Amino acid sequence: MSEAGTAVEARGRDELATDGDLDALCRGLASRAKRAARALATAGPGAKDAWLDAAAKALESRSGEILEANARDVEAAPGLGLNAAAVDRLTLSPRRIGEMARSLREVAALADPIGEVVRSSKRPNGLDVVQVRVPLGVIFMIYESRPNVTIDAAAIAVKSGNAAILRGGKEAIHSNRALHRVLADELARHGLPEHGVQLVATTDRAAVGKLLALPEFIDLAIPRGGEGLIRRVVAEAKMPVMKHYQGICAVYIDEAADPETATRIIVNAKAQRPGVCNAAETLLVHRAIAPSWLPKAASALRAAGVSLRADAQARAILPDAAAASDEDWDTEFLDKILAVKVVDSMDEAIEHIARHGSSHTEAIVTRDLAAARRFVAQVDSSAVMVNASTRFNDGGQLGLGAEIGISTDKYHARGPCGLRELTSTKWIVYGDGQVRE
Amino acid sequence: MSEAGTAVEARGRDELATDGDLDALCRGLASRAKRAARALATAGPGAKDAWLDAAAKALESRSGEILEANARDVEAAPGLGLNAAAVDRLTLSPRRIGEMARSLREVAALADPIGEVVRSSKRPNGLDVVQVRVPLGVIFMIYESRPNVTIDAAAIAVKSGNAAILRGGKEAIHSNRALHRVLADELARHGLPEHGVQLVATTDRAAVGKLLALPEFIDLAIPRGGEGLIRRVVAEAKMPVMKHYQGICAVYIDEAADPETATRIIVNAKAQRPGVCNAAETLLVHRAIAPSWLPKAASALRAAGVSLRADAQARAILPDAAAASDEDWDTEFLDKILAVKVVDSMDEAIEHIARHGSSHTEAIVTRDLAAARRFVAQVDSSAVMVNASTRFNDGGQLGLGAEIGISTDKYHARGPCGLRELTSTKWIVYGDGQVRE
Repeated sequence: MSEAGTAVEARGRDELATDGDLDALCRGLASRAKRAARALATAGPGAKDAWLDAAAKALESRSGEILEANARDVEAAPGLGLNAAAVDRLTLSPRRIGEMARSLREVAALADPIGEVVRSSKRPNGLDVVQVRVPLGVIFMIYESRPNVTIDAAAIAVKSGNAAILRGGKEAIHSNRALHRVLADELARHGLPEHGVQLVATTDRAAVGKLLALPEFIDLAIPRGGEGLIRRVVAEAKMPVMKHYQGICAVYIDEAADPETATRIIVNAKAQRPGVCNAAETLLVHRAIAPSWLPKAASALRAAGVSLRADAQARAILPDAAAASDEDWDTEFLDKILAVKVVDSMDEAIEHIARHGSSHTEAIVTRDLAAARRFVAQVDSSAVMVNASTRFNDGGQLGLGAEIGISTDKYHARGPCGLRELTSTKWIVYGDGQVRE
Repeated sequence: MSEAGTAVEARGRDELATDGDLDALCRGLASRAKRAARALATAGPGAKDAWLDAAAKALESRSGEILEANARDVEAAPGLGLNAAAVDRLTLSPRRIGEMARSLREVAALADPIGEVVRSSKRPNGLDVVQVRVPLGVIFMIYESRPNVTIDAAAIAVKSGNAAILRGGKEAIHSNRALHRVLADELARHGLPEHGVQLVATTDRAAVGKLLALPEFIDLAIPRGGEGLIRRVVAEAKMPVMKHYQGICAVYIDEAADPETATRIIVNAKAQRPGVCNAAETLLVHRAIAPSWLPKAASALRAAGVSLRADAQARAILPDAAAASDEDWDTEFLDKILAVKVVDSMDEAIEHIARHGSSHTEAIVTRDLAAARRFVAQVDSSAVMVNASTRFNDGGQLGLGAEIGISTDKYHARGPCGLRELTSTKWIVYGDGQVRE
């Protein structure tokens, strides 16, 4: 199987003869990952951290071959229809390689989650019961453009004791192969299974579907990219999927908000980085504060380049704002556009969020403790901010260290997903001959 | 919707006109559950525990109507093809109603998991970050025969802040309706949403499929019953499913086992209650101890009514044992039958478990610390016992209090599932105007 697997990594789908070949190749890849996962599950922190540090060093010392491979991707990018922003995300430089090395070292410095005791008790019959953290197994990561995801995903997966199968975008195929070579070479040198990190280097989209149909080998799929990619993965996956579809995040300005805090937060939540999932898309303003606050907020937002789409009540205060359409409340603009609505009460804001939000991140700005407590209790989102920007829903910002994505699901992991979210648990019971009465 | 919902509970499918009706009725049931879940999510421990205690009391005071309903089910049972054991499981008595009431009171006495702080930190920028436990939402429980599951599932779901949709077997329909009435009446009396516990009282199997297709309303499905039921639920569910298919549990007798402990444990693991998932199906014996230990163990097992199916090496020691077939290693006998194999090493035992086991429960009997540590680390089951019976893989025995089932999955919950396993988390961030730089 090993030779066959190497073949799929070296050749493209175009060179494969039949669908049966692709089947066998994907099964080979996935079953090698499963075997590697068994070895990684019992690898100690020492080996994993030594690998991370050595890989960081190797990224720097082998930056020549990485940049060369990346140049091939960048050269091919216009032919694949990438725009300037996408080409920028794709392009590596010594500085960006240095950032990748730094993130490997940061993951090495995090505490190892494996073996952590989650719960324990001594039972009346003398049994010692311990619930300990163990890895999930094999993680299949499907992502687009940015080559640094290859490094980050491998680091987080292996640090948490899992094997990784990486499937990057075809626009980054040469970069990802070069980066993967560095990671894999160092695995073998540090006593870790060489198939602990594998790259699906065929660009055939059918390979993704084949792998998603192998729950006996793959324990979790994590798609990162546009909503279309994520919906496709969810539809095809026979294993759990860690994901969020959208980030339609709202900021609610309560009647008891401090006006300057409110302005600072909505400008940051909307405009600091509008293309990401935790940026705000909706502004909900209590009618008691709207007449005095909205004009000032609007001019600050416009100064930051934001255009407003307002409901009728908000347009009565902001006559220059465009009219919001029904669709705008359900749209993740990912751009400097903000939908603005005046609400009669906090209850109306909470109802609006329940109906139109994506359960990702919401914020309230208020000085009223009771309002904050009620908003936090009743808004059912992965993160709820009180007097802070929605942009803080991020693994680094919340103190998790590295992050592999954000989940809006409630099952298993919710919010930013770091090392702990890639683990499961195992019950271990120590006795001295106890039997059940 | 409310009247329509009552209708589906009162009538059977036979009386429904079209598939469209069933669609609308299931959507009504599920959307009412979702609304009830929002109210239950913020209900305090006081109301939930008062409901549990009052429902316990009402079970006792209304035992007449419950026994009357149960008598109708018992009368109809032979016509539905139930054997004597199944009729016994179905039959209620004042004593069994008393046990149900007791289990409600036990759940009331457990700590409320909702609001528990899972992690917290203060960030360098002054943000206070708290991860708190919240309910999952709506739980759909699909089960067979035993009416007490109606009580237990409702109690565990509501105590953990979730709404429950209960779908029992048609053989228990009248009993379940009577039990459900008691639960629902007390919900309304204690300020909890009356639709916090609903019963799918139509016996049409199509209703299960309809409900499993509603992930927008239902957050988790839990099937309890035969493997066929569970596979059907997994195949149809569009939401996560908490489950195990089988319990093919192995006991490994190490060369350093204490012989008497080994005998006591295998007899208990196999014969104390052979029809349950944590009973042992496979005995793996190290060849160094097999000649001296197996004959004594075999006679103890036979004295407990167990028949043995042995591999060639074991039959050389136990000539009277039947020959094991290849299938026996993959069979959950649920009966007093035990497959016996002699292994050359602990590694062979671990490999056998990896290949044939169901990741449910395994046990090692040994006095060798290194062997115990390695077995525990390398066996990938939801619970691993050292010198204790497999029968201890149970929520009550491991100290979780009530249990709604056992999961052999790694995602979200693994092993016995109690209150905590029916929860998710939410990140709450308190600031005083912080924005992202």
